[in-house]
Amino acid sequence: MTKARQIKLGFILHGVGRTWNDWRHPDRDVNASTSFAQYKRQAQLAEKGKFDFLFVADSLSITEKSSPHYLNRFEPITILSALAGATSHIGLVATLTVSYSEPFNVARQFASLDHISGGRAGWNVVTSWLGDTAANFSKAEHPAHDVRYRIAGEYLDVVQGLWDSWEDDAHVADKESGVFVNAEKLHRLDHQGEFFQVRGPLNIKRGPQGQPVIFQAGASDDGRNFAARRADAIFAAAPTYEDGLSYYADVKARAKGFGRDADKLLVLPGIAPIVGETDAEAEARYRELAGLESLETGLGFLSRSFNDHDFRQYDLDAPFPDVAHIGLNSQQSATKRILAEVRAENLTLRQVVERLSAPRGAFVGSPETVANELQRWFEDQAADGFVIFEPLPGQLDLFVDKVIPILQARGLFREDYEGETFRESLGLDVPENRHTAARSNRSAA
Amino acid sequence: MTKARQIKLGFILHGVGRTWNDWRHPDRDVNASTSFAQYKRQAQLAEKGKFDFLFVADSLSITEKSSPHYLNRFEPITILSALAGATSHIGLVATLTVSYSEPFNVARQFASLDHISGGRAGWNVVTSWLGDTAANFSKAEHPAHDVRYRIAGEYLDVVQGLWDSWEDDAHVADKESGVFVNAEKLHRLDHQGEFFQVRGPLNIKRGPQGQPVIFQAGASDDGRNFAARRADAIFAAAPTYEDGLSYYADVKARAKGFGRDADKLLVLPGIAPIVGETDAEAEARYRELAGLESLETGLGFLSRSFNDHDFRQYDLDAPFPDVAHIGLNSQQSATKRILAEVRAENLTLRQVVERLSAPRGAFVGSPETVANELQRWFEDQAADGFVIFEPLPGQLDLFVDKVIPILQARGLFREDYEGETFRESLGLDVPENRHTAARSNRSAA
Repeated sequence: MTKARQIKLGFILHGVGRTWNDWRHPDRDVNASTSFAQYKRQAQLAEKGKFDFLFVADSLSITEKSSPHYLNRFEPITILSALAGATSHIGLVATLTVSYSEPFNVARQFASLDHISGGRAGWNVVTSWLGDTAANFSKAEHPAHDVRYRIAGEYLDVVQGLWDSWEDDAHVADKESGVFVNAEKLHRLDHQGEFFQVRGPLNIKRGPQGQPVIFQAGASDDGRNFAARRADAIFAAAPTYEDGLSYYADVKARAKGFGRDADKLLVLPGIAPIVGETDAEAEARYRELAGLESLETGLGFLSRSFNDHDFRQYDLDAPFPDVAHIGLNSQQSATKRILAEVRAENLTLRQVVERLSAPRGAFVGSPETVANELQRWFEDQAADGFVIFEPLPGQLDLFVDKVIPILQARGLFREDYEGETFRESLGLDVPENRHTAARSNRSAA
Repeated sequence: MTKARQIKLGFILHGVGRTWNDWRHPDRDVNASTSFAQYKRQAQLAEKGKFDFLFVADSLSITEKSSPHYLNRFEPITILSALAGATSHIGLVATLTVSYSEPFNVARQFASLDHISGGRAGWNVVTSWLGDTAANFSKAEHPAHDVRYRIAGEYLDVVQGLWDSWEDDAHVADKESGVFVNAEKLHRLDHQGEFFQVRGPLNIKRGPQGQPVIFQAGASDDGRNFAARRADAIFAAAPTYEDGLSYYADVKARAKGFGRDADKLLVLPGIAPIVGETDAEAEARYRELAGLESLETGLGFLSRSFNDHDFRQYDLDAPFPDVAHIGLNSQQSATKRILAEVRAENLTLRQVVERLSAPRGAFVGSPETVANELQRWFEDQAADGFVIFEPLPGQLDLFVDKVIPILQARGLFREDYEGETFRESLGLDVPENRHTAARSNRSAA
């Protein structure tokens, strides 16, 4: 009996906010980004709502001009480890770059988190894109975009290989005979690659879900291929329903092209629902939010997307200037999207800036309106689920109390957790240990 | 009014055990090293006992021949972050090597842990010494011993510099004016050194105790100097009272030589008390423990100390063989100590192996006997306190229930936590932010 497809939901813990100025909302705690109490409250609320996972984004470089939510925040592994002890069923997905870390350390930290949490760890694999990050890591410059994905692929090979160091019955621990480990079932990796040489074995056995869940957020062509080949779930950027349909079809087709079961690659757009008692009340809340933003900060964000190009030299109400000559090596896909919108809608600079600084999104309305839109995206295959931002304080409470019950009543979302591990929540198989599989194959042959 | 000097106590969370075979004890949980429930129980018990801190050791390389407590265990940052949420006052000290990590990432993780825990983070700074660790990190070999400490010094400069990126009033967060950060008080590091180039600033502000506490465990000459110059506390190896006296005097003198207040460098030998109702019962418990060890594993441990030299070729009951020709580049100080004991006591190979595999230590006896010995070490300045191992299951319970009340009754140990942060527990000052200090100096001039 095949279970009906259901919506998957993640909540992104993002502290003070997600735009330049939403921290200025009267109800926002300006210390939220380093408040464990606040993170814990949100995590437990999301678990009460039966969310599949918590998600923590990341970046590795700031300047005094950076957006408030980048400037000061928890490091993902530490905060999710702390939340592991304060929750029992919800998945814990940490963003961690392959560009400035060691695969052995990263494999260990995720394996350790998987044990601590009883099988709830997830890793959002990213390559770093901000031009000044290299300067924090004793490097002169970033590797080129295509090289970054070659590095990412090999890095993931190493980490997943290390996660299989211990076959499930390697840890014998027989007090009578004194055999602690079966050396036949503890494996070195002996990886000798283009970028990494890692011997292994990892000094921690496989966790309760076999291997942590792999997330990816790449939107460029390289990024989509990487996600389609390697990820269990994609944190997608789909500002509109049409974007969602097209992105979904594209990456599912790529996954099939790589010989994968496309149902095992979950496409989860990031959305920021604004719920009110009525559609009008929700709209008023969005306008309150948009009113917090300033042109100045919007211009700063735009500048950052375009390699620090200064847009204050242009007329705000003239058509968006021609910036084709500015390199697109950093934050490639966001930049491309902006340029596409400019072309499609003939936007002025001011309109681009407003759109960037206070994105409205497609999920503003009463609980029914928002539930209807979630259902439409889900049923039309624009999404397998969603990663929920909280654009205004109190929105997670409203989503849990008002929207989720509607989805549950319609059979679109689970009534309760069905298992113990994150993989069980997502309907993903526990991957068989590669060495155990090879042993079975040898026996069968 | 100067407060009377009091004993500082740490507890080292070490899972299945600390020797090759103590996991075989009938009461030992063989899954302890990756059991969050067990770690949490011990952490909360130590906090009930008013311990100053929890300590997690580490290493970065195993083979199928490694000791059980190395083979499979939690990564220190993740487990201590998880325990931060399950405790409220006890310090959290994680071992992390400077040899195979990035200072920016390490600075962030400790700063994040400091915020999560309300000011309870500590970092045990180590350089890696096992010969095969480099092979897990895409490196051909370790740097030489003296270079490792040069790297460690510069690495610590970078991390402590990053921790001061934010002056305490840099985070303005004024909703009215829209000023989130005072750019004058958010500082780049712009470190350009021999081994590291790091721009900064760190993307997290200073935690509740200003900077995490620095631990060190080096026992070689370079290690002692590093600790005497840079550490707040030393996790010392002092197998005997005489070792304790001599080590204590040595590092305190070195600290004074570097112009430091020697009282602000705490010397904390690691000890493994075995408590019984009577001295005889405790002695019986030690013999039970020693009976678990085998010659084979002791020989393996010895071999590892001497660069994998095979000692099975020698007569066990003849004097310890001449191995002066074997290089001492790895695990230098432990090797030297063994050679000194061989010379001083004319030991046979068998005696060395027994001593290595089941160390008895100086703290075996009734609660009074153990308390007396702790007091003697403390008052005679062999120690400012201790890091307690649990050589047998149930020993932490006995220490908390039977030994600590004696120390408290004698005024040697606190009745309750006196503050919120780890620095307050240890009697260490909150270091002033270097940029704030420089500003004050400029104003005064």
